[in-house]
Amino acid sequence: MTTEKSLIDSALRGWQFNVERADKLFGDLSAEQLEQEVAPGKNRLIYLWGHLAAVNDGLLSMLGIGERLHPEFDGMFISNPDKSVQLTVSAQSLKAAWQEINQNLWEGFAKFSPSDWAQRHTAVSEQDFEREPHRNRFTVLLGRTVHLAYHVGQAALARLNA
Amino acid sequence: MTTEKSLIDSALRGWQFNVERADKLFGDLSAEQLEQEVAPGKNRLIYLWGHLAAVNDGLLSMLGIGERLHPEFDGMFISNPDKSVQLTVSAQSLKAAWQEINQNLWEGFAKFSPSDWAQRHTAVSEQDFEREPHRNRFTVLLGRTVHLAYHVGQAALARLNA
Repeated sequence: MTTEKSLIDSALRGWQFNVERADKLFGDLSAEQLEQEVAPGKNRLIYLWGHLAAVNDGLLSMLGIGERLHPEFDGMFISNPDKSVQLTVSAQSLKAAWQEINQNLWEGFAKFSPSDWAQRHTAVSEQDFEREPHRNRFTVLLGRTVHLAYHVGQAALARLNA
Repeated sequence: MTTEKSLIDSALRGWQFNVERADKLFGDLSAEQLEQEVAPGKNRLIYLWGHLAAVNDGLLSMLGIGERLHPEFDGMFISNPDKSVQLTVSAQSLKAAWQEINQNLWEGFAKFSPSDWAQRHTAVSEQDFEREPHRNRFTVLLGRTVHLAYHVGQAALARLNA
């Protein structure tokens, strides 16, 4: 394996490890358990799961893999805080969406060459990218892996109370 | 910048971003504030900070950068749960240790070439590494970045109560 491919392999393993950690944490919980807050007065588990699903969904377009599957998640899970908007997605359909989003991402990731990873993502202009070449797909992959872990760490606090 | 270097640059930015996030979260808290639990009955902030410092300290030897600076942290912050062992480090000396550890890591990171990053870390044998080439320095860097974010996410829950 070339050094480039080895570096990308490490990052993809990290991504997958954290997606699976979220799967384990959220995937088997009942709708009732998902109503639990991670700490008193903080986000509910259902909100964190939806938030991660919405952010991952946004990666589909940001990395140029395809159209977003669930842009309607943003209003419920990103642009508004928990408990301020009525959720119109059930735990069951969130689980299905989560799996579909991550499946599509994984298939997209597999098609990128090392130089594709080092190319700009769709939210940065060509001009800006010339000045800031670190705004590439790989940086986004690593950042979203960290984002997953940040909230999985929070969700783990509630899980222990279950 | 070559693709290899670009990929490593992304990872180092991610590391630094998360170290700074921890700096901001823990660095300005008083000894009293650091006694706060992240959620009722969970780890105290001082424990999480010490835990991150201990794990980062372990990276110095694991990545072959140098001797560990604070192996005595392990008993307080890794091998025993919070509140089970008397802490013999003050908030002030933990802060100094945290900064020194991360400074030494950063200087060590700067010396690695792309192929150094793809080489095995010191906790894996040559023989095992042949079978499992992903057990390299870069995978460890990404894994420890995620580890930082996981606990910073938890610590952020307490911070909001301060």
